[in-house]
Amino acid sequence: MKRDILLKETERLDDLLCHGLKIIQDREDFCFSLDAVLLANFVTVKKGERVIDLGTGSGVIPLLLSAKTGASYIAGVEIQERVAERARRSVRYNGLEERVKILTMDLKDAPQLLENDFDVVVTNPPYMEVGRGFINPQESKAISKHEIKCSLEDVIRVGAFLLKSKGRFAIVHKPERLVDLMCLMRKYALEPKKIKFAHPKVGKAPNILLIEALKGGKPQLKFCDPVYIHKEDGTYTDELMGIFYGPQEKV
Amino acid sequence: MKRDILLKETERLDDLLCHGLKIIQDREDFCFSLDAVLLANFVTVKKGERVIDLGTGSGVIPLLLSAKTGASYIAGVEIQERVAERARRSVRYNGLEERVKILTMDLKDAPQLLENDFDVVVTNPPYMEVGRGFINPQESKAISKHEIKCSLEDVIRVGAFLLKSKGRFAIVHKPERLVDLMCLMRKYALEPKKIKFAHPKVGKAPNILLIEALKGGKPQLKFCDPVYIHKEDGTYTDELMGIFYGPQEKV
Repeated sequence: MKRDILLKETERLDDLLCHGLKIIQDREDFCFSLDAVLLANFVTVKKGERVIDLGTGSGVIPLLLSAKTGASYIAGVEIQERVAERARRSVRYNGLEERVKILTMDLKDAPQLLENDFDVVVTNPPYMEVGRGFINPQESKAISKHEIKCSLEDVIRVGAFLLKSKGRFAIVHKPERLVDLMCLMRKYALEPKKIKFAHPKVGKAPNILLIEALKGGKPQLKFCDPVYIHKEDGTYTDELMGIFYGPQEKV
Repeated sequence: MKRDILLKETERLDDLLCHGLKIIQDREDFCFSLDAVLLANFVTVKKGERVIDLGTGSGVIPLLLSAKTGASYIAGVEIQERVAERARRSVRYNGLEERVKILTMDLKDAPQLLENDFDVVVTNPPYMEVGRGFINPQESKAISKHEIKCSLEDVIRVGAFLLKSKGRFAIVHKPERLVDLMCLMRKYALEPKKIKFAHPKVGKAPNILLIEALKGGKPQLKFCDPVYIHKEDGTYTDELMGIFYGPQEKV
């Protein structure tokens, strides 16, 4: 049920390699990465649940979750109107307007604007602390990559607020922020229950970290088997191809 | 420089596979495991440094560090006199009485009894929280495995106390306690700087966690390459054999 859409000059229509989904991306803005795909595969979403994605960008996570899960409602919060408008066109192009809503909103305002009735919060937030690393002079990319508009603590605090009791909070981040993630989650009563690392290849340190926490949960952390991105020859592993093309993993 | 020693009826003399070191173990008490060997290989110890091992048991970590590092003084704290006495015999057997001292002491008393002048604290503490898992009816084994005489927080609090500023705290534990470890270390100003996981084999979730923290350090966590214990055929990997036989790893 693809619709006609307007593609702007710097935009392209990319294949999400999942149930025929397409996504509009702009080469001048942040384009989604493997991290979002891994998160959409990792997070536990049950049939009929309400999901919200904090900092949705191009809308890649809501689009993937619409196909991979039985979520009844998926909201994506995006602070940049130009980026949100593009995500909305992607939703429309895929005929998902009923289930997927893109909200133009500073996620820090979400506790005032939204109810705490979500079963699942997902987020692929900016990774870089301000003061570390090169800040992209292109403001839109900088906002996606650096904690300019929201800190990691903002994302975790707001996520914890939006969840029902026993709701799930799933995040993808750099392994280097592990200590901050663990300590901030506990601070806001999000107990990490499931953790998974992605490694660029066998034998190498991980470069992507996935955590799922339970609001008000008891301590009991389960490590998932790691995922390897590339084979020795540099091509994608079969496991990763399965993540791209397959249904959600069951842990 | 091996000496004559008395071996009790239930004891045996095991080869540490490292510079000809031997260790006395009692089959009725807890015997050291791979975890201690990995920790002795992981922790950063520089020439001339003062090291203390909290809960030293058979003394395996002080023995290994005496051979693998240039530490000038290595203390091992052990609460069970019978276990400490055996460790002392191992130290004597290897002719290490000058550098390695085994102190019979409740580690919780260490802040009253010892000065905070150590460069490095190492510890392979009991892994199981009281209330989880089967508690061994044999008291000595129970003390080694369950947090009966000291909690994880005791070990971290005491370790933090004993260190000089910028001293290193290295611990081996079960990955399932990652959140507790991270949060407790931050609570006592031990900032995790280096982390390494051991996996039973490629593709499997890790079952051993190693962390090194810096007293008063700034947040900046480095992930080491993982280590795999077994090959597909069940034999030890070459990498693990290198850890058994080789010098300390340099990260």
